[in-house]
Amino acid sequence: MVLATQISDSTAVPYRAWFQCMHCPDQHYSLTEVVYRCKSCGGLLEVRHDMAALKALEPDKWRALFDRRYMRTHYPYGSSVWGKKEMVCPAVADENVVSLYEGGSNMFWAERLGRQLGVEDLWVKQCGDSHTGSFKDIGMTVLVSIVKQIIATGQQVPAMVCASSGDTSAALAAYGAAAGIPVVVLLPRGKVTAAQMVQPLANGALTLFLDTDFDGCMKLAKALSNEEQFYYLANSMNPLRLEGQKTVAVEMVQQDDWTVPDWIVVPGGNLGNISALGKGFLEMREMGLIEVLPRLVVAQAAHADPLYQSYLRGFETFEPQRARKTLASAIQIGAPVSWERAIRVLKTFDGVVECASEDELADASAKADLTGLFACPHTGVALAALFKLVAQKVIAPKDKVVVVSTAHGLKFPEFKTRYHAGDLEEFGVVPRFRQIPHEVGAEYGAVQSFVLRHLDGLRAKVV
Amino acid sequence: MVLATQISDSTAVPYRAWFQCMHCPDQHYSLTEVVYRCKSCGGLLEVRHDMAALKALEPDKWRALFDRRYMRTHYPYGSSVWGKKEMVCPAVADENVVSLYEGGSNMFWAERLGRQLGVEDLWVKQCGDSHTGSFKDIGMTVLVSIVKQIIATGQQVPAMVCASSGDTSAALAAYGAAAGIPVVVLLPRGKVTAAQMVQPLANGALTLFLDTDFDGCMKLAKALSNEEQFYYLANSMNPLRLEGQKTVAVEMVQQDDWTVPDWIVVPGGNLGNISALGKGFLEMREMGLIEVLPRLVVAQAAHADPLYQSYLRGFETFEPQRARKTLASAIQIGAPVSWERAIRVLKTFDGVVECASEDELADASAKADLTGLFACPHTGVALAALFKLVAQKVIAPKDKVVVVSTAHGLKFPEFKTRYHAGDLEEFGVVPRFRQIPHEVGAEYGAVQSFVLRHLDGLRAKVV
Repeated sequence: MVLATQISDSTAVPYRAWFQCMHCPDQHYSLTEVVYRCKSCGGLLEVRHDMAALKALEPDKWRALFDRRYMRTHYPYGSSVWGKKEMVCPAVADENVVSLYEGGSNMFWAERLGRQLGVEDLWVKQCGDSHTGSFKDIGMTVLVSIVKQIIATGQQVPAMVCASSGDTSAALAAYGAAAGIPVVVLLPRGKVTAAQMVQPLANGALTLFLDTDFDGCMKLAKALSNEEQFYYLANSMNPLRLEGQKTVAVEMVQQDDWTVPDWIVVPGGNLGNISALGKGFLEMREMGLIEVLPRLVVAQAAHADPLYQSYLRGFETFEPQRARKTLASAIQIGAPVSWERAIRVLKTFDGVVECASEDELADASAKADLTGLFACPHTGVALAALFKLVAQKVIAPKDKVVVVSTAHGLKFPEFKTRYHAGDLEEFGVVPRFRQIPHEVGAEYGAVQSFVLRHLDGLRAKVV
Repeated sequence: MVLATQISDSTAVPYRAWFQCMHCPDQHYSLTEVVYRCKSCGGLLEVRHDMAALKALEPDKWRALFDRRYMRTHYPYGSSVWGKKEMVCPAVADENVVSLYEGGSNMFWAERLGRQLGVEDLWVKQCGDSHTGSFKDIGMTVLVSIVKQIIATGQQVPAMVCASSGDTSAALAAYGAAAGIPVVVLLPRGKVTAAQMVQPLANGALTLFLDTDFDGCMKLAKALSNEEQFYYLANSMNPLRLEGQKTVAVEMVQQDDWTVPDWIVVPGGNLGNISALGKGFLEMREMGLIEVLPRLVVAQAAHADPLYQSYLRGFETFEPQRARKTLASAIQIGAPVSWERAIRVLKTFDGVVECASEDELADASAKADLTGLFACPHTGVALAALFKLVAQKVIAPKDKVVVVSTAHGLKFPEFKTRYHAGDLEEFGVVPRFRQIPHEVGAEYGAVQSFVLRHLDGLRAKVV
């Protein structure tokens, strides 16, 4: 058997990656150093790769290697993240990788929804079909693996810490529990649901509720990790997460036999995801894996739309805002960490920013659900943006479009039940696709005639 | 490119399958006939395959073919169910397959949990990481595809119908919505949670609440489908579902490079899953894909344990019972449809039946969660049975064990929140692994010293 780490039969090429300041090209740090900001200017870091080494192998050989590993049995290379290890995080020894078989999620062909919209080549990338139910897993595996590597080399990391309004804490706690590394999560008291709380709690994370909002939690998480050099920060300000997330770009291309879609629509809050997608596509192009770039769309909730406002001004300025309450709670962020990364990406990719009201995002989710999806509110934001761009003829009928679904709808049952109960008035939602359950007597005649009366309506719904 | 349907480069072999009565070998029906019981004796049907045709290809070639298709891009063969189409359901034309990329779920290496138990080769097959969040998808894809095939040949199927207490209706509604086939689901009023109701509702199924229990709904679903020959019955009495489910057996072997585990533990209610697993292993052995059989364990909730009671009597009799309320609601079944199939399988596989109290299943889930899982209550039943069999030394330290997790924990958030809130007293649960969130003042000093005080406890938890 050929070892998965071997590139060819005879050579094993060394790959290198490091942290580098976004602004100071001379500021480099090892990926196993505990550092989150440039020591010279305080700017954000990004992970940079030795592209010359990556470009030394022919594109066909990379594609063949990535395909050979994809969803196979050689740990950890069956994970779609670690199957691209050389371009993701070569620094980690295989035995320190903490992987729960990330990626490989369904590229849902939205056949019926696409027909309704007049865009027949429409796909929904189901990143929420995962261990913890959101796309956060694919970034967290990289971060937690690096921490395991750090610990293996004898450094002290007493705990990993994050602030969260839900998905991040779930992913961190699960990977921490699997790896046996303590986790501390800081959540804003009274602002997360019982269901959102129970994932980190069940996975044994020290779960603290603080009398503040998400930003307040974030500040304390940073303080714990920075000032003490003590706890390892797992929020997406840490660019290791983006390295995992960028593999969504590679995977969606791989899943279409290495063809690039025309458009990708992704919901945007903290803007790490769009930054990661852009990075993935640019690095793929540099390696010769693809030749063209897709156009990228960031979809924001209108209640938290600083990037959209900046887009309207041609990105000349970026003003953080105070986010208002939105059903798309994971992207209720007025001061996104990765705004600078995102704008750079959007400029490169001829990008578009669209926004969706509460009413639009809720209806878009419900419309999609009627065609077989079970869209979370953030996916609803992306779908609503898609609908608008199709109506505006920005996206054309023949275009191939991929919508990134960031979480499983099962993470947001209350959003669904309240929509169909007509109970989202406080958000201004008028549910046009509301579905109502029926109470019927439990006798054959009653049920039979009730169903018969509703058959035409049912049939009309599934055209 | 070699067509996925071609077995070798030059020949395409015809495969055949049909319905056959479990008792009358001469009673055969086409898979596209709308029939659920033997027309002669009224007995259950099963799907039988032309094993001579399947055996005509060498095992190595089957393995290579299944591996070549697994999670790849040639629709629908990338689905782990349809990648085994010849041995699952050869009757369906590819264009009528309704697939949402089933299977390919993580085989979670329960490294830390196994170490705690002293069984280091312990795996949890995560069948709930799927489109609707339960293993039902892998059976439903086969059934709905057959219905699409029936409709394509000009027959009338006005709707598909099922009775359900949760997971089945979610899967049927999603696949029906994706395919554009009307769905009717019958649910017992007041006995399903809002979250369980909302999946079929959101997917546009006609959702009826009836003033009866699950058995009452089942009776009406049968009546609608049988007496009228009108609606297509999607409950697991229809053996098409089992053909999809049996691929879990193939997939778990494939995911260990075609090695068979020593033990498989699966929760059992209606007993379709154990029947399907058994069928999968026996057919694999007949095809030469494997040489040995695993031992199989059915884990039942003590509140719904007719198979366990029968096992204690050496399977001499089987007595349906009135199931009592259990947290493992999907297996709260006193009169399982597939009891006869299950007993046949257990006798063949030197099988074991174990049961778990409410207290045991809840604690088993919580203990597993602390090692990175997020186990649904049914998986909790299977884990509790495993713990007992290890303690009894039935399962040995060196054995390779696979526990089948049937649903994502996100389908049962209330089970988790109530456990950790200490709120399951009505079920007699004394939560030994209860995790408690903490409220702390939102200042650095308070948080920092609180975390510091809890570090030792945290560290002890993750050993």
